[in-house]
Amino acid sequence: MGEFGLIGRYFQRAVLQQAGDPAAVALGIGDDAALLEPAPGCQWVISTDSLVQGVHFPEQYCPTDLAYRALAVAVSDLAAMGARPLGFTLALTLPTADEAWLGAFSDGLAQCAVDHRISLIGGDTTRGPLNIGISVHGEVARGRALRRSGARPGDLLCVGGPLGDAAAGLALVLDQPLPAPLDEASRDYLLARFWRPRAQCELGQALQGLASAAMDISDGLLQDAGHLARASGVALHIQGADLPSAPALRHWPARQQLDWMLRGGDDYVLLFSLPVAALAQLGDWPITVIGRVEAGQGVWLDGQPIAGDGGYQHFKESADG
Amino acid sequence: MGEFGLIGRYFQRAVLQQAGDPAAVALGIGDDAALLEPAPGCQWVISTDSLVQGVHFPEQYCPTDLAYRALAVAVSDLAAMGARPLGFTLALTLPTADEAWLGAFSDGLAQCAVDHRISLIGGDTTRGPLNIGISVHGEVARGRALRRSGARPGDLLCVGGPLGDAAAGLALVLDQPLPAPLDEASRDYLLARFWRPRAQCELGQALQGLASAAMDISDGLLQDAGHLARASGVALHIQGADLPSAPALRHWPARQQLDWMLRGGDDYVLLFSLPVAALAQLGDWPITVIGRVEAGQGVWLDGQPIAGDGGYQHFKESADG
Repeated sequence: MGEFGLIGRYFQRAVLQQAGDPAAVALGIGDDAALLEPAPGCQWVISTDSLVQGVHFPEQYCPTDLAYRALAVAVSDLAAMGARPLGFTLALTLPTADEAWLGAFSDGLAQCAVDHRISLIGGDTTRGPLNIGISVHGEVARGRALRRSGARPGDLLCVGGPLGDAAAGLALVLDQPLPAPLDEASRDYLLARFWRPRAQCELGQALQGLASAAMDISDGLLQDAGHLARASGVALHIQGADLPSAPALRHWPARQQLDWMLRGGDDYVLLFSLPVAALAQLGDWPITVIGRVEAGQGVWLDGQPIAGDGGYQHFKESADG
Repeated sequence: MGEFGLIGRYFQRAVLQQAGDPAAVALGIGDDAALLEPAPGCQWVISTDSLVQGVHFPEQYCPTDLAYRALAVAVSDLAAMGARPLGFTLALTLPTADEAWLGAFSDGLAQCAVDHRISLIGGDTTRGPLNIGISVHGEVARGRALRRSGARPGDLLCVGGPLGDAAAGLALVLDQPLPAPLDEASRDYLLARFWRPRAQCELGQALQGLASAAMDISDGLLQDAGHLARASGVALHIQGADLPSAPALRHWPARQQLDWMLRGGDDYVLLFSLPVAALAQLGDWPITVIGRVEAGQGVWLDGQPIAGDGGYQHFKESADG
């Protein structure tokens, strides 16, 4: 076991004992494979993501934030299915085994694992250009998974939190010019929304049996709404004035705010459709109705059809959304 | 969905309908995550591997072979646990979306998926330096997984097939000088053993309830035997004269053959310990007894202790074996 084998042990020490549900992990790191113990009557939910420097994250990054974000982004796909997170594997390709980098990275990974109650169950470390591959595993009661395909005309269209924050955070990361001075709290909030998204797993689970369709917003509201509209065979009508935004976003001109809310990616809040009668059962959740599902196709904003994908190319490109 | 999104669809067409058990895949590619349907009473077996050019495979490669090998190597970890393969995810990072490369790669992936009865269930494609991340998912009846930790003094030590083939195959790939002319059939056999290993899933499943410990040989017999000895807290005594080799290997001098059988990696045959009484129940399997488990520690060859890891650095470096 060489230098890179030692890295595996580092992550084991950092993460396994602190996070997740011990009862669900029958066998963790150290054998040929991990064993998870699903609850009776559950299906397995699996998603994989890989992050490449310069594609999915900017050159300017802190390894702690990067690790947090990499895992949270992957877990968000479990949230979008209404699944309960159980375990994840990490395939880490690194140019060198830099101890300071590894310490910071594994700190962020452990923080995110604890926040989302998910255990590191296996991994693979290799020398090469930086590449972070994470596969997440969760469980959902049979037949209760939230899919993209169930939205029906008459349903409400909702989101699980404010939009556009991560796009503003990215503008800060990239040191783009500010329209006005930004207070420290707003800056911290927006940077955290980019680097430390919190996957909406609890909301996803609460939506089981209520939402008719769901997904997470990773590529921007309009683009992801397009995916949901296609999968469900419906039209989604969005009211621009109803989009929720955080106070920190209001430092930018209204036009920029709206653009980020519609086209900014990386917010990782849930987008879902909901029969009107179900809304009252979600009274305790900070969700926002942003429009309606109608017969037809495509995504409409304030009565106008949106052409094409509606998103922009940012630090995200994926085959499975 | 850009150029790299299209790649995802390519793989979907190539693989999903041809391989695996449709009943086990409740939801494949296209939503936020895949859903697998475990058989009642099963645990879930998970392993992840990433392959980096120049580390895990040589610069000279055919994309079809590379894909076959990448998936087979990952599936071998399921075999080592006695698991039945169900599905896998592919996280593919590529410098460019070259259609000829992708066609060849997805051919090999589909061939390997069919051979091992495992379905592609999700993936992620990204632009960047070539990196192939594969996570495999299988199932095993609760408590029946083969671990590395159960070998007991008195057990037989066995392997599931010939050793050293892949190391000889790699020597051919790297165009190393031959000691003697090699016939076409031997060359084809050895290259196939390097590029197209067949994970021993059926053998692994047959060993359930019989083998006291098991793993797959990826880093060379001596090194991997060291892992098994440590995990089980025993000594493993190997008889050099009992190691099985294929006829094709006999083109090389005896000393080179033995070195490859002991230290060559990438054979992906199973290494396992077996109570003597269980041997008769495996009469139909081409397994070979290569030694014995004894009280003590470490790996011994013909009565001599093996110092250190006993393996060499080849195209494989991993944290979880």
